[in-house]
Amino acid sequence: MSDSDRSRELGQQLRVDSIRASAAAGSGHPTSSMSAADLMAVLTDGGYLRWNVNNLKDPANDHLIFSKGHASPLYYSLLKAVGVLDDAELLTFRKFGSRLEGHPTPRIPPTDVATGSLGQGLPIAVGVALAGRKLDRLPYRVWCLCGDSELAEGSIWEAFEHAAFNGLDNLTAIIDVNRLGQTRETMVGWDLERHRARAEAFGWNAITIDGHDVDAIKAAYDEAVTTAGRPTVIIARTKKGRGVKVVEDQPDKHGKPLDDPQAAIEELGGERDIQVRLALPEGRMPHLFDTSGGQLPSWDEGEKVATRQAYGEALAVLGSMRGDIVALDGEVSNSTHSELFREAHEDRYFEMFIAEQQMIAAATGMQVRGWVPFASSFAAFFSRAYDFVRMAAISRANLRLVGSHAGVSIGEDGPSQMALEDIASFRAIHGSTVLHASDANQTAKLVAAMADRQGISFLRTLRGKTTVRTPAGEPVSIGGSRVVRDGLAVAIIACGVTVDEAVEAADTLASEGIDARVIDAYSIKPIDVDTIQAAARECPVIITVEDHWAEGGLGDAVLEALAETNQRPPVHKLAVRKMPGSGSPEELLREAGIDAQSIAATARKLTHSA
Amino acid sequence: MSDSDRSRELGQQLRVDSIRASAAAGSGHPTSSMSAADLMAVLTDGGYLRWNVNNLKDPANDHLIFSKGHASPLYYSLLKAVGVLDDAELLTFRKFGSRLEGHPTPRIPPTDVATGSLGQGLPIAVGVALAGRKLDRLPYRVWCLCGDSELAEGSIWEAFEHAAFNGLDNLTAIIDVNRLGQTRETMVGWDLERHRARAEAFGWNAITIDGHDVDAIKAAYDEAVTTAGRPTVIIARTKKGRGVKVVEDQPDKHGKPLDDPQAAIEELGGERDIQVRLALPEGRMPHLFDTSGGQLPSWDEGEKVATRQAYGEALAVLGSMRGDIVALDGEVSNSTHSELFREAHEDRYFEMFIAEQQMIAAATGMQVRGWVPFASSFAAFFSRAYDFVRMAAISRANLRLVGSHAGVSIGEDGPSQMALEDIASFRAIHGSTVLHASDANQTAKLVAAMADRQGISFLRTLRGKTTVRTPAGEPVSIGGSRVVRDGLAVAIIACGVTVDEAVEAADTLASEGIDARVIDAYSIKPIDVDTIQAAARECPVIITVEDHWAEGGLGDAVLEALAETNQRPPVHKLAVRKMPGSGSPEELLREAGIDAQSIAATARKLTHSA
Repeated sequence: MSDSDRSRELGQQLRVDSIRASAAAGSGHPTSSMSAADLMAVLTDGGYLRWNVNNLKDPANDHLIFSKGHASPLYYSLLKAVGVLDDAELLTFRKFGSRLEGHPTPRIPPTDVATGSLGQGLPIAVGVALAGRKLDRLPYRVWCLCGDSELAEGSIWEAFEHAAFNGLDNLTAIIDVNRLGQTRETMVGWDLERHRARAEAFGWNAITIDGHDVDAIKAAYDEAVTTAGRPTVIIARTKKGRGVKVVEDQPDKHGKPLDDPQAAIEELGGERDIQVRLALPEGRMPHLFDTSGGQLPSWDEGEKVATRQAYGEALAVLGSMRGDIVALDGEVSNSTHSELFREAHEDRYFEMFIAEQQMIAAATGMQVRGWVPFASSFAAFFSRAYDFVRMAAISRANLRLVGSHAGVSIGEDGPSQMALEDIASFRAIHGSTVLHASDANQTAKLVAAMADRQGISFLRTLRGKTTVRTPAGEPVSIGGSRVVRDGLAVAIIACGVTVDEAVEAADTLASEGIDARVIDAYSIKPIDVDTIQAAARECPVIITVEDHWAEGGLGDAVLEALAETNQRPPVHKLAVRKMPGSGSPEELLREAGIDAQSIAATARKLTHSA
Repeated sequence: MSDSDRSRELGQQLRVDSIRASAAAGSGHPTSSMSAADLMAVLTDGGYLRWNVNNLKDPANDHLIFSKGHASPLYYSLLKAVGVLDDAELLTFRKFGSRLEGHPTPRIPPTDVATGSLGQGLPIAVGVALAGRKLDRLPYRVWCLCGDSELAEGSIWEAFEHAAFNGLDNLTAIIDVNRLGQTRETMVGWDLERHRARAEAFGWNAITIDGHDVDAIKAAYDEAVTTAGRPTVIIARTKKGRGVKVVEDQPDKHGKPLDDPQAAIEELGGERDIQVRLALPEGRMPHLFDTSGGQLPSWDEGEKVATRQAYGEALAVLGSMRGDIVALDGEVSNSTHSELFREAHEDRYFEMFIAEQQMIAAATGMQVRGWVPFASSFAAFFSRAYDFVRMAAISRANLRLVGSHAGVSIGEDGPSQMALEDIASFRAIHGSTVLHASDANQTAKLVAAMADRQGISFLRTLRGKTTVRTPAGEPVSIGGSRVVRDGLAVAIIACGVTVDEAVEAADTLASEGIDARVIDAYSIKPIDVDTIQAAARECPVIITVEDHWAEGGLGDAVLEALAETNQRPPVHKLAVRKMPGSGSPEELLREAGIDAQSIAATARKLTHSA
């Protein structure tokens, strides 16, 4: 059998196995798998995909990302063909407890990331390719299979731009242009030249082929791996459901198992058991960055320092202490102060311009290879990449996200720049950590803790300066809090900028004979349940105060900590409840009712009535 | 003075006023304003922008959207020049209480929407242009000023694709290519031909010009308004800070008032007071769609119906009852069932393909003109457009968003398709309404209520069928709830799919002598505080149960309703706490501990210990 014949046979096997898996599951996307089967057959059988199957964690392995995650039947059939899983496991597809979920996740190695929300695989592939080129400095290739429908996602074009800008010739995108989406034809259809013009305009080498012609596919891969200086996209005209007449290029066949799988399998020439021996990667070790050591910065009590400044300083030092730390920023590095890291470690800094989705995706791609990315922007603008963060959690990714310019306390720029929903949205990310330091010393220690934290961690920083209250030697930890001031008349639980306000309120109250306890809840998730429950036992009323909308933030985290208790005092949430405009930080804190005066007034009223 | 000279003078006036406003504010973005001043001078003085300044709400008016919202000094200076505001108000820029916020919002008419999160103005402009072409059927033009930095946002390319696909020749994008971002040069710099190639590849008419040559600008606008069948983009090479040597095309001059505004004003030739008389729009009335009437669908108690199906049926009828209803979908209309609206009202249905950001932006653009858009997708995929929803709230937009396939109850598709953070993220949108019907009758009534609701409303629907329990004649309202079953031993508060589970649990408990109250909290924000507080007074323990992560969802809304009460029973939140995989809905509900058996077990344990 010629190589081409063998690849054709393997393509049919991948189709048959996709149909079998979907039939066994009673659901799934066989037709979206069948269109790309020849592309994947040549990729594996042609020696292009290089994996050490005996060590799926080999740093030198190529990476294969199914951006069209719903083609999971094809992906799992491929994994079977290359010996990563067996036929019995293939038939557990979509069953409870199986590693073979409806859409791929890292539960089944060597899968790097979860896909299934379209338009994310390619931006993540850009991140892996950046890691290969600039961090690992290894010759592994990154292959990414995309659907044509997902080219409608803007994130795909962020990826196209960044891949070209960075000259990522180690990245190949394979577009399965089967033209049919879930309900209708895509906007571009089979107009391959239109696809080509777009890709070329974004700086890519673009190749158009018949995606069922194995020789053409082979030639395209050959061109991709020999093209230097820019990424290649293979735009392959395919037919959805290819090979089975009742579904081939037919509408209304998306996301359904075949009605008569047995007939379809016969039409495809029956089951096969071709085992593919993949090419091996070049066995080299990843690059390591030199470290020079150092010590986390600290500040004297009473100093006024913006926590965003402390972030930049701490991260720069952390980069000197650890060679695995990398930083990314969305073209606001002089606002977030990640510029301090860039100045110290330019070869580990990645400018992601104003493309927050690509920024999170790049960070996700880098952590696939064990790097420790910190990505920063205005906290408000992480909302642009919320789906990427959501999916990163499903990818079991370890990301450190640092958002500056939180809350109305930014002042004049107005609400578009104010993060007021960030705590809520990040709390609702599975396994997340949500931190909001009130001073520079807390910030530095939390940044160091984040580097070792699993999952998605988010640190909210402030534009304006706050008072350093935490002594440099005092422990600060994820899940901790600080009792800034003891008292029994009322407990005021604050975080970030409202800690200064709460302390000022407590001073005022003290002069009136009301001894307020002030708790600095710098760790919002996990929150310090013991300290909060103690306050609930010992104080007749609790006030929470946050520069955030009333929903889902600190106040709700406090209520959660007290939910199952049998008795608890009333909890009064002070939070932003009205759409702010522009103004000075002081004016806006006052208007929102979260400044010292408002806190004191609330405490006064409640302690008198308690 | 020739027309060209006058436009040049006006450009200088806009620069001077931008500098003056920023100087008065002590902050702002004068240099980003100065680059685009000539473009805006010709737009207004050349007769291209057609506004009835005496009636800023005239439906025939053109629309001008500053996608680069940070060029607000230029925008407000333009509004002054055309007579919408006076010089005294201009100098209130960024001051507390002023309508002239740091970034434009609809507080200052005729501003359509808030901008300031980059990459959003153009997609919204596409929505307004779609309304002009397909809904209003008026010849108004939509002008959108974009920065070049924001072209890095993928959402811009979603807009490019949709504008071309829809042949929106009523839309002109003006790109202010000053090449300098906040910290460095953009990825494309002054390579206008690269910008042109991209725009043309996406199907636009592209014109490259010197953005400070008023005659070239005029010629470009002439070409834009006479180009038929496709949108035009004017790619204008400009200099940031143009006209003032110390800042012109200089780095590190982003987002700062000038050091010496008086010298700069002198360099620009001093203050001017040119008043522009804008061209008038063609005074026509918007199209109205015929209505045929109808009655909201209802179902018999005991029927099993998916709430997503009820959504589609209700929306289709609502479209017959009201001509202002329009629907958009992200290429999953046969899953969300918005296809039923499309089939009934094809001319008011907009296929947004897999571009959720553009979908929300288009809906925002349509509501600018008073249309009542319902946009649907899988609930999980609204996370893709979270920043657009956040900004829509700042735009005071009225949007109705309907997300299907919520929670682990979708089953086999796995976590990438499961909305588990949607309630939390939507609760944290300012002024939002969050609904989650448990049955078809509730759904139909809530859909009708949403049509009249101000702000952002979100309805979560279910993939699987649930039992119709709400009698067709029973009132269902935003802010309401249903006591499905009375009882005093324990209150179980559920929503959506968990209502069926809670009722089954209550049946089991009843057979054991435990009388559980079951509350169906279909309105999560606002929540029915009275009913929940009554349960807290009357029952010794509360269990909340939701197919959502534990943070920010129903449980937290219940805790919020009880926060300020002096006494309340323990609240036990049952929610999804472990990353789900694939499986049947029953298996996944069981694994998450939110099925009938888990609820009954929890109630049993708590009532025994209570």
